[in-house]
Amino acid sequence: MVQEAQIQISCAQFEPRIGEKKRNLAASIALVETLAAKGSQLIVLPELCNSGYVLESRAEAYELSEEVATGETIAAWTKLAAETNVTLVAGFLEREGVKLYNSAVVIGPDGIIGTYRKTHLWNAEALFFERGDLGFPVFHTRFGRLGVLICYDGWFPEAWRLLAMQGADIVCVPTNWVPMEKQPGHLPAMANILCMGAAHSNSMVVAACDRVGTERGQPFIGQSLIVDHNGWPVAGPASKDEPEEITARIDLSQARRQRNWNAFNQVVRDRRTDLYGEMLGTEARPDWH
Amino acid sequence: MVQEAQIQISCAQFEPRIGEKKRNLAASIALVETLAAKGSQLIVLPELCNSGYVLESRAEAYELSEEVATGETIAAWTKLAAETNVTLVAGFLEREGVKLYNSAVVIGPDGIIGTYRKTHLWNAEALFFERGDLGFPVFHTRFGRLGVLICYDGWFPEAWRLLAMQGADIVCVPTNWVPMEKQPGHLPAMANILCMGAAHSNSMVVAACDRVGTERGQPFIGQSLIVDHNGWPVAGPASKDEPEEITARIDLSQARRQRNWNAFNQVVRDRRTDLYGEMLGTEARPDWH
Repeated sequence: MVQEAQIQISCAQFEPRIGEKKRNLAASIALVETLAAKGSQLIVLPELCNSGYVLESRAEAYELSEEVATGETIAAWTKLAAETNVTLVAGFLEREGVKLYNSAVVIGPDGIIGTYRKTHLWNAEALFFERGDLGFPVFHTRFGRLGVLICYDGWFPEAWRLLAMQGADIVCVPTNWVPMEKQPGHLPAMANILCMGAAHSNSMVVAACDRVGTERGQPFIGQSLIVDHNGWPVAGPASKDEPEEITARIDLSQARRQRNWNAFNQVVRDRRTDLYGEMLGTEARPDWH
Repeated sequence: MVQEAQIQISCAQFEPRIGEKKRNLAASIALVETLAAKGSQLIVLPELCNSGYVLESRAEAYELSEEVATGETIAAWTKLAAETNVTLVAGFLEREGVKLYNSAVVIGPDGIIGTYRKTHLWNAEALFFERGDLGFPVFHTRFGRLGVLICYDGWFPEAWRLLAMQGADIVCVPTNWVPMEKQPGHLPAMANILCMGAAHSNSMVVAACDRVGTERGQPFIGQSLIVDHNGWPVAGPASKDEPEEITARIDLSQARRQRNWNAFNQVVRDRRTDLYGEMLGTEARPDWH
């Protein structure tokens, strides 16, 4: 019997404040230290969580940006991941030369694993950021294969599918979800529903970490959640307006073990590529199951 | 101000019985007559609703099959649609020569509009049916553009997206949903969640008509629903185990009017085809908005 691959995953939903980089970094460090002390091995933080979200000007965006190689937030998170022996997935405001990106960094105990740049920009982000140009990378970690999407990326089933087809076991989603109109009170947020459907129809775990609070008039909706590979929440949805850490223990091997739903069907392999075409970026499909 | 395009849509969730074609047809006619008398203009019936679902042998499948041009069910539904002035979308067991398909026919007051053949076969269907070979057609009706998916097709965001990219205003889903494991009692069925997410992330109305009852040991889950273009249910989910008609009045023009979510975003147009490729079947994209 192959050993299980259970890990403890947390999302640290909190309230970053625009422009207060030192305060936001300190808050993220305190949260990670607390969660790591409780045994969490993978911790997801919100989108743009070191800078805040609602930018007023390009000048402000540059002021809050940092390069991966030299940025003080990245350096502090790298030290933190090593000290606490965790893997972090965290949103930050990236600069490369004169270009800005809404990015997330994946950092393990051994250092930076990779960067993802948000590919589908939302609303006024288009005034500040370039569209992500790194595709949909799947990062290898000690506990399995990990993909990243940021907020509005989750509205594109193509993005989830591309991660699944590259063998992702889990997708981490740093996000700053905004309210959608007319959400019926008895149903989960549409953002939650999209995570559930994507997890289910790709047999992947999803860990989405949102922020809360209102920034320059823009409210955010919280409701961070962790969804198993069947699509059902195993932690959260968290509070709509208060900081809240959510944690789940998940056997990532189940996402791989249980993709065959019966004698005939495996949802990702059942794709009718003869009808809708092969997706780009899947040529080098690994030997995943 | 352009006139609205409100229509009355119903799903007639009932319990077909395997092999009882005359009884099933009579039941479907009674339901359509009742719903048409109440003003419904578009009526969706379940998957394989004239034959029943759980086939025991290929001989039985052939016995229950019919060709579109000569089939007695199709002829009766065509007469019914003309008499009641409705558009029907109904699942039936199609034969073309020696090939069998799990199909749905779209019939308007003026006659047969088209046929869709299920492209993603579920479980033992693979023993009887060929995979659909007609692609994902979008049919033109007097009230707008209509696509069809059947049951397991709904697990493939590619299929919904291809319909959206061809300008579908509404997708009708004749289905025979089976139980998924571990559904939490406070959440909708995963099948419902997939419909909600697909409607939302494509700005399309979805009308899914399931069956109920247990056939040769296979239970079905009901929970038919009609979802608006925002992704929220406007009728249903219906009963899990009893026949139930659900009805909603929907302004289909809203699905077209409200695709621009802000100054920058329209979810279907925001696709990063540079990263995941163009889909086949969308070369002749019409001038939809």
